[in-house]
This record gives sequence, structure tokens and C-alpha cells, in this order.
Amino acid sequence: MHLEILTVGDELLLGLTIDTNGPWLSRELAADGVQVARRASVGDQATQIADAVRDALDRTGALITTGGLGPTADDLTAPTIAALFGRELVFDSTQWERIRKLWRERGRPGEPPNANRQQVMIPAGARVLSNRHGTAPGIFLEDERGRWVAMLPGVPREMRGIFNDELRPLVRARLGGVTSVVRTRTVRTTSVAESQLPSILGDLARGFDGMSLAYLPGQEGVDLRLTIAGVAPDEADARLAAGAALLGDRVGAYVYAEGATDLAEVVLAACRARGLRLAVAESCTGGLLGARVTAIPGSSDVFMGGIIAYDNAVKEGQLGVAAATLAAHGAVSEAVAREMAAGVRARLGTQVGVGITGVAGPGGGTPDKPVGLVWIAVDVDGEVRTFGGRLIGDRAEVRYRATQGALELIRRVLSQR
Amino acid sequence: MHLEILTVGDELLLGLTIDTNGPWLSRELAADGVQVARRASVGDQATQIADAVRDALDRTGALITTGGLGPTADDLTAPTIAALFGRELVFDSTQWERIRKLWRERGRPGEPPNANRQQVMIPAGARVLSNRHGTAPGIFLEDERGRWVAMLPGVPREMRGIFNDELRPLVRARLGGVTSVVRTRTVRTTSVAESQLPSILGDLARGFDGMSLAYLPGQEGVDLRLTIAGVAPDEADARLAAGAALLGDRVGAYVYAEGATDLAEVVLAACRARGLRLAVAESCTGGLLGARVTAIPGSSDVFMGGIIAYDNAVKEGQLGVAAATLAAHGAVSEAVAREMAAGVRARLGTQVGVGITGVAGPGGGTPDKPVGLVWIAVDVDGEVRTFGGRLIGDRAEVRYRATQGALELIRRVLSQR
Repeated sequence: MHLEILTVGDELLLGLTIDTNGPWLSRELAADGVQVARRASVGDQATQIADAVRDALDRTGALITTGGLGPTADDLTAPTIAALFGRELVFDSTQWERIRKLWRERGRPGEPPNANRQQVMIPAGARVLSNRHGTAPGIFLEDERGRWVAMLPGVPREMRGIFNDELRPLVRARLGGVTSVVRTRTVRTTSVAESQLPSILGDLARGFDGMSLAYLPGQEGVDLRLTIAGVAPDEADARLAAGAALLGDRVGAYVYAEGATDLAEVVLAACRARGLRLAVAESCTGGLLGARVTAIPGSSDVFMGGIIAYDNAVKEGQLGVAAATLAAHGAVSEAVAREMAAGVRARLGTQVGVGITGVAGPGGGTPDKPVGLVWIAVDVDGEVRTFGGRLIGDRAEVRYRATQGALELIRRVLSQR
Repeated sequence: MHLEILTVGDELLLGLTIDTNGPWLSRELAADGVQVARRASVGDQATQIADAVRDALDRTGALITTGGLGPTADDLTAPTIAALFGRELVFDSTQWERIRKLWRERGRPGEPPNANRQQVMIPAGARVLSNRHGTAPGIFLEDERGRWVAMLPGVPREMRGIFNDELRPLVRARLGGVTSVVRTRTVRTTSVAESQLPSILGDLARGFDGMSLAYLPGQEGVDLRLTIAGVAPDEADARLAAGAALLGDRVGAYVYAEGATDLAEVVLAACRARGLRLAVAESCTGGLLGARVTAIPGSSDVFMGGIIAYDNAVKEGQLGVAAATLAAHGAVSEAVAREMAAGVRARLGTQVGVGITGVAGPGGGTPDKPVGLVWIAVDVDGEVRTFGGRLIGDRAEVRYRATQGALELIRRVLSQR
């Protein structure tokens, strides 16, 4: 089963609002086995709405709209679609009583404004979709050929409520028994380029066993997402599990987690399993690594704390980095990263210490030490491993990638202990 | 001038990714006087892409696409649109050299994989839009009737760079004289509830002087956004400037900035103007305040660094918090926040010190000290101001709101000096 989604509102086309209704509906529908063929946004003009609805009905014959059901003059979804279906608008006194009751329950004085009456003008022959969370009811309108439009309000809480309460059962009823769903499973990789992955994956690179494979590059690395559609739920889950295992075998050490698990969580678990405590010494990242580690609930049994050594005086005074090392190698150097890692371990009394120093940009780069150059040292009980390289992106990306690089280096060192 | 935007990717239709490229492009285009007539998303299938591009060209004759220019088999935007225009794909050796150079600069061994060659297969007669930030060049393709498609990659940084560097001038050249634009201006407030603002604003609350007013609540406070449409650019800017000034007068001390300026930037400027240096001592925020301050380029002349005192042993050892204070008041207390602020000032030798301690949750709350309770102390040359209160939200929100509270407290203390 295919359908389309149309979100209505000038604020969407002006880019002032990010549409979260479309993605939410897409996820819910996919999990039910419904494929969204296209998603579109138009403004609040009747002609734009009418054109887009007509296109979708011609193409797919099934459409969910959100937005344009409010009480003001720019809310034109219902009258426009009613006209397209050749239906009159009829005042719904049951819905009007519901709005009056809501008005009183919210402790508002007098009667609801006349503006709200517009919300209960329902196209003749339509089915009302009750709204437990607000004034605008949803509307389900179907023509003699079985083509339909479901209109939902744009307020996310109301839209979600009506979808779950009223529309989902209607859509499911049109599906027959749900025999197939769309499910996904994600394998997370880091420190490997997107373009290297197809050759590493070989015959798996374009998907396998009925599953498609997507490459999703981001600041944390490349996520590999398996998607399966058109099979029963149990079958889908079993094949995804087998597929994820196969990807893990093929990609090997670049894989650090599945799903949405952050690398910081993986590193905390690795430290915990080995009874190690962690401390960080941060220069260019300014606390971002500590922030990322402590974003994980329960990090306190592993993470002691750290020193943000932004100024070189702090590197010397709080971490014991030698003035001679700074003078000889500069703040952004392997030698300084090593002394930072050793220093924070010693001062905070941990087994694992990390030092990060780099040129985050946009200023401060030199031919020798360009923007993006980062040195990272991981010191575990005096055994040190370092990474040096030029990270790509703007200031925020360089800093974030530096935290990812530091976590990855810890993960690798610990995996060998 | 009208155009359409098409974002390509299965992940969009599955609701796994929220499209931010479409809204960003819409805002930039609106500011240039270009109206987006429709925005749509389709999956990675060639037929879906071809149908949507054909529709947009028939309807509007001008289209920007994002996504589907990567190096893997599911990247079909360029070949599909080339076929629609009846153009061959031609290997672009200049772009290939650029990718090889990028590969070397990133310190990767050998040659870029063959997969990357797909990214430099350019439709005959198309204009290449250079990408300073990544491998995929953009492509601008126009037919003999003047209908055009501009293809941009889906990675936001690359898309934005190509739009600003290359596509914007092309679109502007096609505009003729711009006569009317949509412009917005935002006034940022903090420490005031959204529901208090209408009565503070009085007759301005619903917009004024032809400008609409939107209330945008977030973790940093409530942004007040003025929008004006349908007037000439100079006129729009003048009225927005006057409007922003009027809002500033009315809302007073709750206003801390305009536009997208972060409160950290305001605090750095306030320290800089007074010749003060800043250090942070963080417990529940774990480095997040330092990360936020150092996200601002040029922060190094004000920000010395800090101590992440997640474990109480670090509060004692590195900040000099007295064991007796911890025992008497507990780690989350006004007394400990004060000693943290004083301690970090003394250790790092700054005039301004901040201490933050709290219960970020989800665990660790008690009836006396519930989840969300945060104590903040700001110490400027020994003069101390504190804030204590229960912040709302989940772990991430409590932590972020704590950094906002700390910055706001510094701003208030410094404004009186």
C-alpha cells in the first residue's frame, strides 16, 4: 500500500518551521507496512493546496494532509479539498458542542469565538476524526472511486493523537491483515571513509537477502542502515539480525555499535568491564569530550572528571606539561598531547587518561599546523597510543570529530587489553 | 520568481531523517526575494526522482535538488536527471583531480576508490558547482527553453557551501531587480516564561507596524521573531530594526541578544570589555559550559579553562572544596557551588569563576534534592552571586539549561559592574 503526505503552511515554505509531522507519520506508517511514495509541502493558498491534492490523488489515490485546519482566515485545507471533491460544507453541531465543552474546561469565559465555527464545517459525507487534544477535528473524505484524503491538524500533539486514535485503524483496515512491514537496523562504523566501504563489503555492498543497504555519513562516522520491506514482522527482524551480524563480520574493527548507541557509551562500558576509571585533558575541545561522556546516565562510576586546559598556563599549572615541551613542539603536538594525558591521569588518579590538542579554526592555522590538525593521546597505565591528523569541517565539526577520534582511540586500546 | 525544492533520499520518506536542507534553502531564498512554490521529498528510486523532477519542471521550470550525489549505488540523482534532459554523462578530469587532492590532504593512503569516480560523471553541457567542503560537486543543468535544475549534495555543510559560493549568484542573476522580500529579525530573551511575554508586550503582543510576531520557546529562553513580507528590502530592514528596538525597550533586561547570537558570545564580550578572564568548575554539566564557551571562535583571550569535577574527589583535590562542606551540605548545594567557583578562580588565576553542581537525572534524585535541582555560583573578584532552582526537562535539557543559567548569572553580575 502506498500513500502520500502533504504538509500545509506558509511557515514551511519560508523555512521558518522544520516539518516534524511528515517524518513522524512516515515512521509510523512504515512500521505498519505502508510506504510513503512522496511527501510535499505547500503554502496556505487554495490553488497551491488544490494542485498538490489533485496531483497526489491522480498519482497514488491516498493522501494524508497536516495543517490548515485552524480557526483563522489562512486555514483553507478543508474548504479547498471539499470543493475538489464537489462536496458542500455542513455545520456539525456535535463537534461544536465538543468545542464549547473544551472552552469551559479550559476555564475560559463566555462562548468560543465565532472563528472556531469554521473548524466544524465538515464536507458532506465525510467522516469526522475526533481530536482529544484540541479544537480542530480531523476529516476523512473518500470519493466513489475509493480515492481518499485524511486531513489532520498541524499541531503535532493533536495530529499524533488523531492519527493513533482514529486514522491508523482506518488505514489498517484498508491494508487487509498486515502481512508486511518496513523495518530497519543500523550498524555504526567510524574511522573509515564512505567510499572505502563498498569494496570492503564486496557482494554485500548494494544490499543482500532482500534488504537494501544505505550509507549514512556523519560526524561520528558512516552508519550502515539495512532496510527490509514486504515481509512479515518476525521474518523482517530475523533477517535484519542476521544481516547486521554479517555486516559486522565483514567490516570488522570499524564497527563500534548498533542502533543509536553513542561511542561514549561503548567506551564507558569497556572501562567498566575492565575496572578502569577515566579522566580527560582537553584543549581545543574545551570540555566537549567530558560533556559527551557525562551525557550518558550512570557515567559517574567510570568518569572522574578532567582539566579543560585551554590556555597554555593551565596545561603547565594544572596538568604539569613542561614549558620546554611547549616551547620545543608547540601546544598542538604529539608530545604535548602525551603529557596532557599522563598529567590528567596523575592528577585525578585514574588508569585511563586522554589528552586532546588541536587547531579548531577558523583562525590560528599555519602552513605547518593547519586548521583541523589534532593530536590525541590515550594513556592506559602508562602505555600510550597517539593519533595525529587533519580533521575536516568547520570549527564545530573539527571539535566533534576530535572527541570521536579520542573515544575511538580509547576503544581500540582497550579492545587489545 | 518561483522555484521548487526536491530533497532525495529513502531515509526522508521513512522518516529516519528530518529534512533541514529544505527549510534552510527556503529561508535563504526568501531573503533574496525568491518564493518556494513547493517542496517535495522522494526516495532513492530513479522513477520517483524522474517523476518529481518532470512535475516540477512542467509546473515551475526551476528546481533545486539535494541528495543522491554520493559515491554509492543508491545515489541516482545526476544520471536520472541527465537522462531526463537527454544528456550523456562525461567524466570530468578536473573534478577528479580535486577529489584526488582532497584524498591526499585528508591523509588517506593510495588513490580514492573507484566509487568516487561516479561523483565526477557530469551531464554534458552542465555547469559544475564547486564544492569546497567535500567530494561531490554540484551540477547546474539548463535546457534550451531556460528550464533548469540545480543539484546539490545532501550533506548540509556541503550543500550550504555550494549554494552560497556558486548557486546563489546564478539564481540572483535570473531574478532581475528584487522588489519584495520576506525578512525576519529575532530578539532573544531568557529567564522569562512564554506566557508572561504577551502582558509585558501589551499592544505589541500580536505584531505591529505590518510585522507579525512569533514566540519561539526553547532551552535558551523565548525568541521573539518579527516577520515582514511584501515590501522592498530597505523598507523591510528599516521596519524590522525599529521593531526590534521597540521590543528591546519593552522587554528590558530579559533581552540578551539579537539573531542567532549565543549567550556565551555575549558573556565573552562582557568579560573582554572589562578586561576579565573566565574559568569554569563543572560537576553535573561535565564540561558542557566550557564546550559552549569555546564553541565561539576567539574565546581564548577570555577563557582560561576549567576543572570538570564530576567525582567529589576531584572537587576536593583539584578545586579545594572542603570535605566538611561536602559532608555538611552534600555535593549539590549552594555552599559547594561557591567553593567550586572560588576554587577554580584561585587555581586558574582568573577574575571570574563559575561553579555548577546539580542533579541531572534521570537517577540520583531525592525528596530533598530532586532531579533538576541545580546550584550555580558566580565569583567575580571575590564578590559572589548564586542561583538555585529546579530546572525542567530530561537529562540533556537540565544540563543545557544549567549552562544557560550560569551564563545568564555572569551576564547579570557583569552588567552591574
